[in-house]
Amino acid sequence: MNPQDALTLRLDRAARQSLAASQQGSAYLPELATLCLPVTMLWCRVLRHDPTAPDWPDRDRFVVPSLALQPLLHAMLRLTGAIGADTQAMPEYGTHPAVEVAPGPAGQGVAAAAGMALAEQILARRHGRSLVNHRVWVMARDTDLLTGVALEAAQLAGRFGLNRLTVLVSPGSHTDPAEFSDSLARFSASGWSVRWVNAHSLPAVNAALTASTRARKPTLIACMPSPIGTPADYMAPATVAEEEQIGPWSPTARRGASLRRSWLRRLSRHRGRDTFEREFASIPPPLLTEDWLRLWRQALHALPARSSQQAALAGLRALGAVRHELGVLAAASGSGAWHATPHAPSATHAAAPWPCGLQEHGMAGMLNGMALHGGILPCGVAGMITIDRMRSALRMAALMRRKVLYLLTDDGLALSDGGAGWQPVEQLASLRAMPHLAVFRPACAEETFACWQAALDWVEGPALLVLSPHETPEPPPAPPPGSGGFAGPPSGTAPRPPAVLAGRFGTAAHGGYLLCGEGTRDVTLMATGPEVGIARHAQALLAAHGLRVAVASIPCWEAFSRQTPAYRMAVLGDTGLRVGIEAANSFGWERWLGQNGIFIGMDDFGISAPANAVYERFGITAEAVCAKVLERLALSTPAKESPAPTPTLPRSRTGTRNK
Amino acid sequence: MNPQDALTLRLDRAARQSLAASQQGSAYLPELATLCLPVTMLWCRVLRHDPTAPDWPDRDRFVVPSLALQPLLHAMLRLTGAIGADTQAMPEYGTHPAVEVAPGPAGQGVAAAAGMALAEQILARRHGRSLVNHRVWVMARDTDLLTGVALEAAQLAGRFGLNRLTVLVSPGSHTDPAEFSDSLARFSASGWSVRWVNAHSLPAVNAALTASTRARKPTLIACMPSPIGTPADYMAPATVAEEEQIGPWSPTARRGASLRRSWLRRLSRHRGRDTFEREFASIPPPLLTEDWLRLWRQALHALPARSSQQAALAGLRALGAVRHELGVLAAASGSGAWHATPHAPSATHAAAPWPCGLQEHGMAGMLNGMALHGGILPCGVAGMITIDRMRSALRMAALMRRKVLYLLTDDGLALSDGGAGWQPVEQLASLRAMPHLAVFRPACAEETFACWQAALDWVEGPALLVLSPHETPEPPPAPPPGSGGFAGPPSGTAPRPPAVLAGRFGTAAHGGYLLCGEGTRDVTLMATGPEVGIARHAQALLAAHGLRVAVASIPCWEAFSRQTPAYRMAVLGDTGLRVGIEAANSFGWERWLGQNGIFIGMDDFGISAPANAVYERFGITAEAVCAKVLERLALSTPAKESPAPTPTLPRSRTGTRNK
Repeated sequence: MNPQDALTLRLDRAARQSLAASQQGSAYLPELATLCLPVTMLWCRVLRHDPTAPDWPDRDRFVVPSLALQPLLHAMLRLTGAIGADTQAMPEYGTHPAVEVAPGPAGQGVAAAAGMALAEQILARRHGRSLVNHRVWVMARDTDLLTGVALEAAQLAGRFGLNRLTVLVSPGSHTDPAEFSDSLARFSASGWSVRWVNAHSLPAVNAALTASTRARKPTLIACMPSPIGTPADYMAPATVAEEEQIGPWSPTARRGASLRRSWLRRLSRHRGRDTFEREFASIPPPLLTEDWLRLWRQALHALPARSSQQAALAGLRALGAVRHELGVLAAASGSGAWHATPHAPSATHAAAPWPCGLQEHGMAGMLNGMALHGGILPCGVAGMITIDRMRSALRMAALMRRKVLYLLTDDGLALSDGGAGWQPVEQLASLRAMPHLAVFRPACAEETFACWQAALDWVEGPALLVLSPHETPEPPPAPPPGSGGFAGPPSGTAPRPPAVLAGRFGTAAHGGYLLCGEGTRDVTLMATGPEVGIARHAQALLAAHGLRVAVASIPCWEAFSRQTPAYRMAVLGDTGLRVGIEAANSFGWERWLGQNGIFIGMDDFGISAPANAVYERFGITAEAVCAKVLERLALSTPAKESPAPTPTLPRSRTGTRNK
Repeated sequence: MNPQDALTLRLDRAARQSLAASQQGSAYLPELATLCLPVTMLWCRVLRHDPTAPDWPDRDRFVVPSLALQPLLHAMLRLTGAIGADTQAMPEYGTHPAVEVAPGPAGQGVAAAAGMALAEQILARRHGRSLVNHRVWVMARDTDLLTGVALEAAQLAGRFGLNRLTVLVSPGSHTDPAEFSDSLARFSASGWSVRWVNAHSLPAVNAALTASTRARKPTLIACMPSPIGTPADYMAPATVAEEEQIGPWSPTARRGASLRRSWLRRLSRHRGRDTFEREFASIPPPLLTEDWLRLWRQALHALPARSSQQAALAGLRALGAVRHELGVLAAASGSGAWHATPHAPSATHAAAPWPCGLQEHGMAGMLNGMALHGGILPCGVAGMITIDRMRSALRMAALMRRKVLYLLTDDGLALSDGGAGWQPVEQLASLRAMPHLAVFRPACAEETFACWQAALDWVEGPALLVLSPHETPEPPPAPPPGSGGFAGPPSGTAPRPPAVLAGRFGTAAHGGYLLCGEGTRDVTLMATGPEVGIARHAQALLAAHGLRVAVASIPCWEAFSRQTPAYRMAVLGDTGLRVGIEAANSFGWERWLGQNGIFIGMDDFGISAPANAVYERFGITAEAVCAKVLERLALSTPAKESPAPTPTLPRSRTGTRNK
């Protein structure tokens, strides 16, 4: 046995002892025991890891997405000295940089790791292998590999050729061997290199790890327990000298420190050093807003119609030309809209989006990994209705407070025929309910710009832009003075905070603002997205009846909620009737409407009908708004409805069909 | 060429002509053309389909889940006479029984078809092959097979050995052949029999269809365009005699009618005829409530603690003994709770749930298929947090208004350590926003019974029971007179409508009711689920301060919304302060709290902490409720806060981290 092997075996014994001592993973001890030697050898000989600088950008990512397998990471961190040897509790995500992900639903970790490997590939192309040359290792459970999100991400990893990704897995104690083998065959059929390894054989593990670093595909290493079971002496808590627990790892630490030192030397000489450091610190480049604005305006000039969707996608294309760290993944549902959007003629060619087909859930999981990797600003483009499929991954981004941008196209009812199921109805409410997530639904091209900026500035977690393919029927008011009659964003010479389009009171960046009708009013019409146009039209109709009507746009509820109560009251109006208009579910609108407000929207799923017929069918029109407001005002004038003090019990109606 | 082949070819030409005439599928014409001969042969020779009775229970299900491929179904329906030959528009789901599913997101149709095949297998075991002997055919697109939901459902179909399921697929015009081949390999690795077929060869198609009817596994038939492309004469709109378009199909119709007649004869002689017909008409058996109650009470006696989760699962086990048509699928996240629930000792052994592991999305898609098949009452058991992954499928059930029951376990914050991500926070709000879906969150074992009944009675769509594993701290009031001190449901001798537990005003079946404090009150505490116990405790604390406090439980918002305004006002109180208590997000609570109410809950994700520490950390305790109410009442007594008339603009705070 050569000295290196002897060292690895000694370290393996120390890790096993540490595992046996921790009571956390007792139910998963067989699985952990099988993975122990491969992981020890990985940390000992292969992993780029410097315990003194665990957040080094060019480190290897070692991803442990399940609580069950965390004790092994814990043992590695303790033995390498990344955390104190007497730290009993596993550090949670966010408290130690070596904990790369928060534990989440099965399969999310595999998808996130694929995203990290994609980020590595993108960054290596931009900055070269001298600065970016690391790998992503995942310790997965066999159940992770069965989930839809992992299977979707595996397809994408295979398609993109993410050869820097390696998954280590071992069958659980209750796993059917045939199902485990099937599971590996599915990965093999997704463009992965799959290797079976006797997890207790030093040469086999060594060969598999070495082969995975040379593979041209993502690699899956199935670590199999040896046929006669784990050697008994491995798990026995033998007395081991203190130096054997900690001391032997010093070569590992020395290797990591030496790798990092030479990387730092290369970085200091690299001509892209400032950009690299800026991007890893998530600092936007100087003059961002000005350059972006200029490109964006050029692109807008070429647009035939200016829906929020086209404006936002033009903004994304322009942003990609200014912020090269932008990494765009596009699902099939959103890529049509992307390709229909013109590019600013003067922009240098920004990177094309990575096509993710119908694997939206895998895509969303990978976006999380790109955000976790650092150095990339991840952005996903997909159809609004597909957000339901991505919800699990989106929640992980919100939970970890990572900045992921989503541009969700084809919102609203004015879609083409065929399939009521594609019209989003409850999606807006379900997204607004998620903590740390900001949902923007801009009304028009102008508002889109302010929302785009606010989404970039949102630091609490992910941000979504919900976009409509149809032009808002009537554009919001005349362009502000100084913009020269151009309906796009104003000429951008002002420094940050950006010049957002101001309404009569407030701006879109405040989350909600008054378009017109400041002061005392009889009615306040509130809307988001394309329905702002309906509100503007209804205002004109109601004004003809002698009513003072204010119109408020509330593109982002989360930002609006964070304004002062006085500001919100000035927008919403402390007197008069409040009316909410949105081509969606009423759920949650009571927040702004109060108990006596009216909501004009839909509390059922959509129907199949051409374009605006759906708006007509659900009564989301200026005329219907006007009629309802007049009816309510006529009713409420004489006397207020007072509830009967002792009502009789109505019969339970759950058994009857209510329409 | 034998006469049958000649006939098939003539019919194929008629179908192609019909396809060419319809302009709908022009973009997908190559795909449709490839599938035309296999589908024609299927309808001509194999499919159990009687155009005069398209809703015959023992028919073959022919599932076309995508709009793109519907023209071929349309052609078949027209040519067989199931719809008029001059019907230009494809019938939508719900308007014709031969349209088995509504078009939905990619992959959902494959999962639903797997559910139908499972339903067939369950029913065949119960009623025998003389009554149930059909197959499920799916015409899928290649993109369907790439999605996570289809891959999950495929694993389940393979595991359950659903040999009555056949998927027909052909590569799209832009599909990479290697990716298509990989896609089939993934199905092959999931326990499927995969066959490649030249779609223009009569003998090959015939052999594949025959083989699939004899296979012991689910079958995937890849219909490949012939190497030299579709023969040109196939697509040419040649003049075909009228009898050739309609006439030749009469053998198909005759075959279907003859199959159905002999089936009807077998049914009329079958001793289980009444049960079979009742179950297909979704009519509960006579004496259901009484029998169920008796078994349920027996099971409850054996329970050590009576959390809503244990009560509901005991109710499910008891229901399975009474309603044999119950089909239960259990995800790994819910099966632990299921197995921990005792069975009523006298109950005949109800069917064990089908284990679905971590494939929750596939499971939910299959539940839809079971509901669509008929004759089965599908019920899914899974962890509450996994509902995010099932959301897309759940929406399809709501859209198609199919009755699917979900028992969601492990709700609430009082979970064990490790992983803040598993604590549901925004899930309740996101579910309450979905149209046609009823969400029940019972407080205790007693309320669980009423909610279980109401969920069964809910006819608009799917219903969810959201369950907590922890006993509600303080049980709701003393058992009603006549229940003999037993805290379970009252002895069930009353006829339907069921004897639900009545509070002081209303019942849980109304969706919301008063537990105590009818009449004038200073404060109304509203809660759902285990937080009702906190409200009851807070009531005692506030009463000590001389306040009149009412406590309302609102287990089902959807049912409560459907009560009269007078009833709701009597529960919520028209005077006094309203306080909502729920260990979840506040989103949507303004509906019941109004503008001035207080919400006690959490607007952030959970934390990792043992059991009740999370409640303490987020201030969801009786003491915290009491303190907040007293503070608010002290504040509001002197004067009401009035907003400043002309507030200054606060700076935009989207860029700052708000906690």
